[in-house]
Amino acid sequence: MYYEIFGQFKKSLGQLDKWLDAATTFAQSRSFEPNVFMGLRLAPDQFTFSRQVQATCDTAKAAASRLTGKEAPTHPDTEATLAELQARIRSVVAYLDGLSAKDFEASASRVVSQPRWEGKVMSGADYFVEHALPNFFFHISHSYAILRHNGVPVGKRDYLGALSLKAP
Amino acid sequence: MYYEIFGQFKKSLGQLDKWLDAATTFAQSRSFEPNVFMGLRLAPDQFTFSRQVQATCDTAKAAASRLTGKEAPTHPDTEATLAELQARIRSVVAYLDGLSAKDFEASASRVVSQPRWEGKVMSGADYFVEHALPNFFFHISHSYAILRHNGVPVGKRDYLGALSLKAP
Repeated sequence: MYYEIFGQFKKSLGQLDKWLDAATTFAQSRSFEPNVFMGLRLAPDQFTFSRQVQATCDTAKAAASRLTGKEAPTHPDTEATLAELQARIRSVVAYLDGLSAKDFEASASRVVSQPRWEGKVMSGADYFVEHALPNFFFHISHSYAILRHNGVPVGKRDYLGALSLKAP
Repeated sequence: MYYEIFGQFKKSLGQLDKWLDAATTFAQSRSFEPNVFMGLRLAPDQFTFSRQVQATCDTAKAAASRLTGKEAPTHPDTEATLAELQARIRSVVAYLDGLSAKDFEASASRVVSQPRWEGKVMSGADYFVEHALPNFFFHISHSYAILRHNGVPVGKRDYLGALSLKAP
């Protein structure tokens, strides 16, 4: 199911891209500078909007890279505008687009480590379910929440995107 | 992977239960009524905190029920206190505890429908990845965000809970 869930990450990143358009349009309709959103946050010791978007991108690309062994694009965290954040999102979507179901075949048994884990490791399976999955949705939901809290007219359909509904 | 991800839902619900304790302690330390949190929200047309917690519970239990065919507990949405929300969370955790990996064996090929889909259906696989998974983390992240926005001292470790770290 790794491949299918990364497909969902890709879809969610596409929705996030559209929320940035909605934020830009909203700012223009109220005659304020759209990049004001970059520095907004829900609590003084939480990430800003731009950092939430960066973390959403990084969680998806780092998880895909750790679970497939395929090198991810690097992003130096220098985005200063919504348009630059959109370029980062699209770069991660393009990277994920290049991965196949076959690339994820050995994911569950890979060994994952991070500097903050002080020498400890996790299996690919545990890392994906306990860390990557909740973190990806945490940061994308916080990105959404910051926009909603500040008046941007996005709704649950914009969060989920189109569903694969079929005739019964 | 259904069973493993429902294991994560269960773990996340356990963390949510602890955030309600943290909210109660925080309110007492500031001498305000803890149940004030029930009605807080990030935007006037978003769910209140209590509704976000209810939706987190409902997403997990409805998804588990649709994917296993095992009837879920009902909750009439009458909670008026944080303690009552905690009872709901624990009821869902107990329900999920009763499900085995075998119960999820036919999940991918089940047919799922909802009244709002106007006669259309989704496969269990599509429903889980496109709907249940993003919705669960949406509502639990918004529950967290409302508490953080209002000063409750919870952090990323409280969101993720303990990780299955091992010696290399």
